[in-house]
Amino acid sequence: MSEETVNMEGAVCAPPLPHHEQIVMGHGAGGRMSHQLIRKTFLPAFQNPVLQTGDDAGLVESALRQKLSISTDAHVVSPLFFPGGDIGKLAVCGTVNDVSMLGAKPLYLTAGFILEEGLQMDVLQRVIDSMKQAAQEAGVQIVAGDTKVVQRGKADGMYITTAGVGIVREGVNVSGANARPGDVVILSGTIGDHGIAVLGARGELGFQSNIQSDVAPLNHLIEAMLDASPNIHVLRDPTRGGLATTLNEISSQSGVEIVLNEEAIPVNPEVSAACEMLGFDPLYIANEGKLVCLVPGEDAEKVLSAMKKTRYGEGAVMIGEVSTGTKVRVLLRTAIGSTRLVDMLAGEMLPRIC
Amino acid sequence: MSEETVNMEGAVCAPPLPHHEQIVMGHGAGGRMSHQLIRKTFLPAFQNPVLQTGDDAGLVESALRQKLSISTDAHVVSPLFFPGGDIGKLAVCGTVNDVSMLGAKPLYLTAGFILEEGLQMDVLQRVIDSMKQAAQEAGVQIVAGDTKVVQRGKADGMYITTAGVGIVREGVNVSGANARPGDVVILSGTIGDHGIAVLGARGELGFQSNIQSDVAPLNHLIEAMLDASPNIHVLRDPTRGGLATTLNEISSQSGVEIVLNEEAIPVNPEVSAACEMLGFDPLYIANEGKLVCLVPGEDAEKVLSAMKKTRYGEGAVMIGEVSTGTKVRVLLRTAIGSTRLVDMLAGEMLPRIC
Repeated sequence: MSEETVNMEGAVCAPPLPHHEQIVMGHGAGGRMSHQLIRKTFLPAFQNPVLQTGDDAGLVESALRQKLSISTDAHVVSPLFFPGGDIGKLAVCGTVNDVSMLGAKPLYLTAGFILEEGLQMDVLQRVIDSMKQAAQEAGVQIVAGDTKVVQRGKADGMYITTAGVGIVREGVNVSGANARPGDVVILSGTIGDHGIAVLGARGELGFQSNIQSDVAPLNHLIEAMLDASPNIHVLRDPTRGGLATTLNEISSQSGVEIVLNEEAIPVNPEVSAACEMLGFDPLYIANEGKLVCLVPGEDAEKVLSAMKKTRYGEGAVMIGEVSTGTKVRVLLRTAIGSTRLVDMLAGEMLPRIC
Repeated sequence: MSEETVNMEGAVCAPPLPHHEQIVMGHGAGGRMSHQLIRKTFLPAFQNPVLQTGDDAGLVESALRQKLSISTDAHVVSPLFFPGGDIGKLAVCGTVNDVSMLGAKPLYLTAGFILEEGLQMDVLQRVIDSMKQAAQEAGVQIVAGDTKVVQRGKADGMYITTAGVGIVREGVNVSGANARPGDVVILSGTIGDHGIAVLGARGELGFQSNIQSDVAPLNHLIEAMLDASPNIHVLRDPTRGGLATTLNEISSQSGVEIVLNEEAIPVNPEVSAACEMLGFDPLYIANEGKLVCLVPGEDAEKVLSAMKKTRYGEGAVMIGEVSTGTKVRVLLRTAIGSTRLVDMLAGEMLPRIC
């Protein structure tokens, strides 16, 4: 890590990525290559203050000065069904969660389906039923949709892109840019379950596993947290790129140093074993039903206790804090007392995990 | 047409479609098969009053009783570039137009990209630049995005799903369900240009053509129309399935008979010639920059004259009216004085046209 450089946003990062003439799988992995694609290709074209914030959703104002949170996610997970979920549940929860991460109550979703010719109707029906259930649990309505069909071999069963709109709760101001020294980092439960569950469903683990995806709508959890403290600074769900990438994004957006305690980060023993066998670090594995919260130290206990009373927050723990250090980076204090730098995921790790 | 039956919504329609165990291309064509898929598979699951209206966008209320128009469109056009446009322009205009068709001012878009591994970066860049231009012309901001990459052979270059949010103009009430006897049907210009332009780009015409797609953002046109008359009953863009399918949808939603004058419907001579050679009816060919408007007879002249002053409405003409007939159907008075029934597009016609 001696070759660290500091990028324009002041973040510690590895040497520049190679130039690509073509899209490669790593551009979809949610790590540094994805960020570069967004920064170099999308942002310059679509430049506006809303996109520039780099949060999970865009924050806009309606004519009546009401703040709306708007987000979208394309879903291409393979296989379509995996232990604990499927592409439909993922498509609803992914967008519900992104909209919620700005402290908004998600209300409306849209769903765009790209179906491959030959897709079994009952497969589509199961996915739709699953979306219905997830939407009901989250309390959102799917108010618009579109369906396109492409020839055999031009998709992989089905892809679903959802978008969502929510109303930001009065008096809250949550953003990845709001982390401050003294903030405590709370994680809502174990990491790595989703990614490893999908790998298992692909038969890529090499052994039978009981690992279930954690895919879940987190909006009710967030409501409980904001009821406990309106002073929450950051909410973010560590999906593609995992906890490490998410915390690097927050560190970069806020210009702060985040220090984690390795021992405090909960990992399901089966996930841990799978990662060890495959040479993966759970910090980089995708989650679909977890969130990290950064909250001023004085409110941390009450937020944590509110989380523990909810279905998707019962495993919540404090895992670190924002230090007073001036370097923009994420550090991990290991069990043996050493400290290592936690970088953002670079390129590809697990393709088509969401 | 002696086997006509009346469906649950009271619409005249052909005999029931065959049952399908698998998705076939016709499910994506925007005609009767698409409608059946939506009615049998999507609507029962996502049932809510907003979806049920069957309009191009969902109409919802924010907490402050402000009406929002929300819509989404998945874009899978092949090839990615065609005379007059590309998938990026299409993705922006398609959603801008759908949001606008409820009498709303579109403000915010989201864009979800599914990229195929190996896509050339400069192709992506050209598409993005085109989206930027289209968004600027429409005056909308792209406030959220997502990018996924799938392996070679799991997509076809790129797919783009956009969603949009707009604010419904005070005092207007536009819906496919609002057509009433005495309404005049106004069409904003020639039909069939987009579909034939895409066919030409695929080399499927068998001859060189100069036909350009009409893809365009229609929101400013609609503003001018609503300035001229807030009493407009219906606005709809005849995309997949063409003018015939769109008018059948309106007839069905409103429970009215629509009578068209064949001679009044403008068709570019080149489009007309191509259709004749290929055995297509321009009434069923997709448009991406045209709209139909149904407005009470007394306001028709002023709406038409306002349209003619705009860039995308200069070719506007009155093409028919809502009759006092009690049958729910669309009729065409031909040049030779006969009358024929115009049905909805049944299955597939031109795949991947948008």
